[in-house]
Amino acid sequence: MIPGPTPVPERVLTALGRHPIGHRSKEFQALVERTNKQLRWLHQTEEEVLVITGSGTAAMEAGIINTLRKGDKVLCGENGKFGERWVKVAKAYGLEVEVIQSAWGTPLETDTFKERLEKDINKEIRAVIITHSETSTGVINDLEVISQHVKKHGKALTIADCVTSLGACNVPMDAWGIDVIASGSQKGYMMPPGLSFVALSQRAWQAYKKSDLPKFYLDLGQYLKAAKNNSNPFTPSVNLYFAMEKALEMMEKEGLKNIFSRHARHRSAIQAAMKAIGLPLFADEIHGSPAITAVAPEDFDAELLRKIVKENFDILLAGGQDHLKGKIFRIGHLGFVNDRDILTAIAAIETSVHSLGAGKNKLGEGLRAASDHII
Amino acid sequence: MIPGPTPVPERVLTALGRHPIGHRSKEFQALVERTNKQLRWLHQTEEEVLVITGSGTAAMEAGIINTLRKGDKVLCGENGKFGERWVKVAKAYGLEVEVIQSAWGTPLETDTFKERLEKDINKEIRAVIITHSETSTGVINDLEVISQHVKKHGKALTIADCVTSLGACNVPMDAWGIDVIASGSQKGYMMPPGLSFVALSQRAWQAYKKSDLPKFYLDLGQYLKAAKNNSNPFTPSVNLYFAMEKALEMMEKEGLKNIFSRHARHRSAIQAAMKAIGLPLFADEIHGSPAITAVAPEDFDAELLRKIVKENFDILLAGGQDHLKGKIFRIGHLGFVNDRDILTAIAAIETSVHSLGAGKNKLGEGLRAASDHII
Repeated sequence: MIPGPTPVPERVLTALGRHPIGHRSKEFQALVERTNKQLRWLHQTEEEVLVITGSGTAAMEAGIINTLRKGDKVLCGENGKFGERWVKVAKAYGLEVEVIQSAWGTPLETDTFKERLEKDINKEIRAVIITHSETSTGVINDLEVISQHVKKHGKALTIADCVTSLGACNVPMDAWGIDVIASGSQKGYMMPPGLSFVALSQRAWQAYKKSDLPKFYLDLGQYLKAAKNNSNPFTPSVNLYFAMEKALEMMEKEGLKNIFSRHARHRSAIQAAMKAIGLPLFADEIHGSPAITAVAPEDFDAELLRKIVKENFDILLAGGQDHLKGKIFRIGHLGFVNDRDILTAIAAIETSVHSLGAGKNKLGEGLRAASDHII
Repeated sequence: MIPGPTPVPERVLTALGRHPIGHRSKEFQALVERTNKQLRWLHQTEEEVLVITGSGTAAMEAGIINTLRKGDKVLCGENGKFGERWVKVAKAYGLEVEVIQSAWGTPLETDTFKERLEKDINKEIRAVIITHSETSTGVINDLEVISQHVKKHGKALTIADCVTSLGACNVPMDAWGIDVIASGSQKGYMMPPGLSFVALSQRAWQAYKKSDLPKFYLDLGQYLKAAKNNSNPFTPSVNLYFAMEKALEMMEKEGLKNIFSRHARHRSAIQAAMKAIGLPLFADEIHGSPAITAVAPEDFDAELLRKIVKENFDILLAGGQDHLKGKIFRIGHLGFVNDRDILTAIAAIETSVHSLGAGKNKLGEGLRAASDHII
């Protein structure tokens, strides 16, 4: 129950363990044609979704360095560890970064973006870079509204880290007019880590032509050209392609609506359970991520609870990162997770909290509160 | 029988198909500690071998952009498709590239490097970038001698693409004083593609401190820091780590000497067989790569032979790239390949050549010539 690597279905693992085939063979080309189509479905886009052998950071970095020029002014939303990372990437490439910050655990203020973009009369801002679901804090930022403000600005691009939102909640790339979406395989995709994904709007491809930041492995022009031939510019992680096809087949069978409602239901169940156990949520529940819930216990060290849950129930929860270590624990509910997994995790947490003498209500109240959302 | 993805042992595939574990868990940390040690053994080095989730190109690009500054003068050896690629990478990052060329199918002239380096009295050349085994032509370049010339220069670094040489022939990083070695998992490692490797000498790490080329995902300083903690800076391809441990265990059991002599034996067997069948080798046999042999038939289209061998025997040979398409076919003999595989491939090629009426000697002479090297 960590936010990635997430659980992987058996049939996906079986496909992963197939003997690799030549990446320039007709058989592989046919597979790429199928997975490219599946990826467009998942992103709700007509654009090509480009597959990079690499971590999610590679896809996000590619999105930034393929659409901007050295010295370009960008707004970076920062309300957690991943927001911080995109600030670092932008600075590493010599962009002029203006950070719009919110405290960790609170969402980015959409009005701050609105005002800042409206004030930019000379249209100097070239991009707004934000994290949709902030994995480090369990907060979902309002990508839809921020992207509307960017659209009104007319010149800037919306570059979004959707690593833990894609495949967990609705992120219709074309309908929302998002210019760059980056994601990674070990999240909503129900796959092991190792592949990452980035899709660019037509406006972003226009910006690509003018971009002057140096790149080769992450040069998306090469990936686009290859994608149009159902191929890859460099030797791809062939076995993860086998896994991807199976995982996306399962997702297609379940359907986007069902996938999103399952994640929403699990978020509600966990939020209700934590409150009933007497554990404060780290983020306000209306801004809770559909992928991960952070919990901030007041009466004991969060690392101690993680240890008990792991030892007694063999369930791995995520800890807090950086200054949040020991202060929060995080429950991943992303990807291949079903109702039973959620109830099991809640039962393990509730039992462990009571073993610490820290339950605020009768043992079982947490599970009961969760069940109201599940059944 | 292509030069990558190469065959993968069953036990490696089984490990690949395990359920992933958290990349920040103690269990994974212990695995990284073991594989880091194995990688140092394979590279014959005391330095850390850094693992990048990405293709071999990512590792090679990382080696270049982490050790050089914008405008630096570099010599690039170019006698095939991969040599060409490193020229492109160097130019993409604004390096001043001087190309030392040899015709495709011939090795780089070591004396040309010697002379050029000796002429550089002001020590302006910062690096010599070469491909050890040129996969596109089946030529092995003399990395040992060129690296000696670089050492005498005193200032330049040797940056080597060892993608199809590492694990096929002796590449003792420390003993030869190579500053940067890059490689990829789908070659001598007997693994599927998806991981790449780069190791830097202490001199290269000194250069890293002064390097000003922009990077984030490929910033090797982050990888070194993580490697010292048996970790990774970004979510790594966890399942390929499972596979890597098993593959390297098998390699350790066989031993470097045996691995190298197996590859040398297979190269000799294939060279002898092709000559006995009456098929000219594309590269002079003394410069033949231990990983791949390119064959240039005179009497028929190489693509036709590939088609017949695939259809009749289900053996995939590699074709020629770019202007060599149709002119050569390439036999991969790299990684998890045994004597039987070599004899089988030769028999399939010999039979197919005779079916085209193009055998210069009696059917069976090729196999007989190969057997002299195998038995």
